[in-house]
Amino acid sequence: MSLAQRIQVDLNCDMAESFGPYTLGHDELIMPHITSANIACGFHAGDPSVMRKTVALAKAHGVRVGAHPGYPDLAGFGRRQMGLTPHEIYDGLVYQIGALLGVARSQNAEVTHVKVHGALYNAAAVDERLATAIARAIRDVDSALWLVGMCGSEIIEAGLTAGLRVAREVFADRAYQADGTLVPRNLPGAVHTDVSLVVRQALDMVTKGFVTAVSGERIPVSADTMCTRGRAACSSFCEHYA
Amino acid sequence: MSLAQRIQVDLNCDMAESFGPYTLGHDELIMPHITSANIACGFHAGDPSVMRKTVALAKAHGVRVGAHPGYPDLAGFGRRQMGLTPHEIYDGLVYQIGALLGVARSQNAEVTHVKVHGALYNAAAVDERLATAIARAIRDVDSALWLVGMCGSEIIEAGLTAGLRVAREVFADRAYQADGTLVPRNLPGAVHTDVSLVVRQALDMVTKGFVTAVSGERIPVSADTMCTRGRAACSSFCEHYA
Amino acid sequence: MSLAQRIQVDLNCDMAESFGPYTLGHDELIMPHITSANIACGFHAGDPSVMRKTVALAKAHGVRVGAHPGYPDLAGFGRRQMGLTPHEIYDGLVYQIGALLGVARSQNAEVTHVKVHGALYNAAAVDERLATAIARAIRDVDSALWLVGMCGSEIIEAGLTAGLRVAREVFADRAYQADGTLVPRNLPGAVHTDVSLVVRQALDMVTKGFVTAVSGERIPVSADTMCTRGRAACSSFCEHYA
Amino acid sequence: MSLAQRIQVDLNCDMAESFGPYTLGHDELIMPHITSANIACGFHAGDPSVMRKTVALAKAHGVRVGAHPGYPDLAGFGRRQMGLTPHEIYDGLVYQIGALLGVARSQNAEVTHVKVHGALYNAAAVDERLATAIARAIRDVDSALWLVGMCGSEIIEAGLTAGLRVAREVFADRAYQADGTLVPRNLPGAVHTDVSLVVRQALDMVTKGFVTAVSGERIPVSADTMCTRGRAACSSFCEHYA
Repeated sequence: MSLAQRIQVDLNCDMAESFGPYTLGHDELIMPHITSANIACGFHAGDPSVMRKTVALAKAHGVRVGAHPGYPDLAGFGRRQMGLTPHEIYDGLVYQIGALLGVARSQNAEVTHVKVHGALYNAAAVDERLATAIARAIRDVDSALWLVGMCGSEIIEAGLTAGLRVAREVFADRAYQADGTLVPRNLPGAVHTDVSLVVRQALDMVTKGFVTAVSGERIPVSADTMCTRGRAACSSFCEHYA
Repeated sequence: MSLAQRIQVDLNCDMAESFGPYTLGHDELIMPHITSANIACGFHAGDPSVMRKTVALAKAHGVRVGAHPGYPDLAGFGRRQMGLTPHEIYDGLVYQIGALLGVARSQNAEVTHVKVHGALYNAAAVDERLATAIARAIRDVDSALWLVGMCGSEIIEAGLTAGLRVAREVFADRAYQADGTLVPRNLPGAVHTDVSLVVRQALDMVTKGFVTAVSGERIPVSADTMCTRGRAACSSFCEHYA
Repeated sequence: MSLAQRIQVDLNCDMAESFGPYTLGHDELIMPHITSANIACGFHAGDPSVMRKTVALAKAHGVRVGAHPGYPDLAGFGRRQMGLTPHEIYDGLVYQIGALLGVARSQNAEVTHVKVHGALYNAAAVDERLATAIARAIRDVDSALWLVGMCGSEIIEAGLTAGLRVAREVFADRAYQADGTLVPRNLPGAVHTDVSLVVRQALDMVTKGFVTAVSGERIPVSADTMCTRGRAACSSFCEHYA
Repeated sequence: MSLAQRIQVDLNCDMAESFGPYTLGHDELIMPHITSANIACGFHAGDPSVMRKTVALAKAHGVRVGAHPGYPDLAGFGRRQMGLTPHEIYDGLVYQIGALLGVARSQNAEVTHVKVHGALYNAAAVDERLATAIARAIRDVDSALWLVGMCGSEIIEAGLTAGLRVAREVFADRAYQADGTLVPRNLPGAVHTDVSLVVRQALDMVTKGFVTAVSGERIPVSADTMCTRGRAACSSFCEHYA
């Protein structure tokens, strides 16, 4: 049995992060290699025109379209923690998911999932109240949407409690801590730059169900979907194994 | 036959114009008196929490919920002309209508119509390319939405061409010019402050099909819906005649 | 000896918090009663036109003009904590103080002091790194500026270390905790609404050098300047004792 | 006599146009080749950190630092016309120039000039009221600042009337119309991409006092400063002739 036959995992990527005159990311190059695109919705990145183009691109490649809402902080790219209340989080998510629904409808495309971004993603992984607000926002807009969240974290529990289908996400290019959380981006070694390491971590997670933490321990993971950032890592993995 | 029996007109009002710590308008006081609420969508005014509260308020009063998208200019309240291309207008509308769809869905409310705001409203009344972009954006998000626009203007033509149902709007508290357009806000006398004048203009438009321009001429109008701003004028009209 | 002769304290007030079409505060009513105006600089509130008008108003009343910079969060009014780095804080302060310098220069007015706003004020009271970044930003723009900060907190230490003159601020209308910090706004009783209580706390702080915490303890304070918000409290205090 | 001896012209470049996570321009590569840097001030592009870094870079290269204020339209990069009143323009300029003053002061750098950006630049070239508002804003902040503006346009007149020193700007890489204005960016041929053409136009303007319009006519120009965008054109010109 070949490796290709054994591996079945959704590859997702954060996209539509350009804004006005500013270009970020390599959406056109990455789109052919993934199965789910997370579309930034204008709060931490993205704008209406970028969203339209990226949804069209995803549709052309048969890639699933999901909302990627974040904190209202363009200057900080949604990576700075913000003290929003669960109510504010809920309202912001409903708005952003709706905005993408509008864009998708205008192209007869479907929105299939929601994955929150950056600092909100991290907060939702450990804060039950935020996680619950997020899950309810998704359910209240459309209970058929999948919730994509950090494997093993609060957001997965919140999604299940809200009656949503959940996709547990793992990261091929991020270092893990012994407790199953990611090494914060501002620490050295947070992001793997060695492509072979990225590929091995991806294979470990998807085919063997574990990831090796920076402490050396093997942590069990369920990998429903794998986040792939960076063209090199993505195309490398895809070319060889997908 | 009483007056009340003869008058049948939709009363619409621009709402949800507060933002963050800032309060604008008298939504709670006006809502009981109108039949359609135009919800600002966060570009020229409004925010996700204000939208949620206003949709809930409309639903509680059995008032129709519509999108009220505008230029991306919070500081200028969408009243400053901006050189956006028709493509940018289209994308911005799809986004804003979608955002309101999300908010409405989360409350099992329906979005029934779209009316653009301020400087965009004025531009769409005379610029066929902008009007067409607006009509297509509405149709592409949901072809069942009504387009509300300035009676006798380009936007009505564009809506009909796009296959939309249109509602011709008249203004009870704005002075008209001989060509059927409104006296610009920055000119004296643009907004009627005399309540009796507002009421008479309303009755002329709704029951007799004309409005008296500042030049003294009677201009024929079709009044499917009447914009009512200001608590005094609205409640005065409603108490006496609605 | 009359009370009026004994009391000598700077009365400061946060101002210029309106934005575009939105009005907040009662600047015109309060200005005659205070001695220092803290001007919002466009990040958490305020805009260039509001700044100009408020500086002119302060100048007309012989009131000192100071910068009141905050987090870049208009929707949250700068009251939500944000995870900005000390470098980002430094840069944001230099920018905002400079912006007010421009406004002041254009009116031949002088900027005398800087007091940071809201969540940043609270963070700077307890986080030495943020406090240091703030003090250095002020010093680097103009070492003659006074730093106004929470009495007894880190920001006062940071200001002294940076070689700045500091003004220790006390609050007449905020409840204190036993450790000398303010009761957070989201807790009940955080803000005194009883004018007589406000006045008594003001007199205790200014003339007797203490404030009574919610726990009942008397906490020693040095009151170089007193923050006064709200028209009622301010005018009441001023009319009777200033 | 060598060419180098004959050519004496200020080379200016628009800079500091990155924002938060977004990078735009090649400031580090261009800075060694120019004599004046126009620093975006956060309205149409730029942010406080980008401003700090760019001022430091300019200072390190002995390049003059100027303010480059624009319309408050980050999404449109200040290139969309906006209907601001002269008062709003004035206030926005005072604010932005002040912000850069703050940044410059914090580094013991000097601000020497002001050049407005994009759509505001174009509007100020033909609208006397806007031009006057701009000139007065500059003068009121610091009457020693140079005003840089389109050679032969209203802004130059307004600057002289306000008592400012003015620098007439010419463009090496933009096509001119017979009336001395630039071919709008949205028309074909608006920007020269042929480096040899850029260099020839630059030399014609600086050494011979004319530019050849698209109609073939020679238009007289006074070239106090030349705008140089794009690394290729800039370094090519500088290497050969500066």
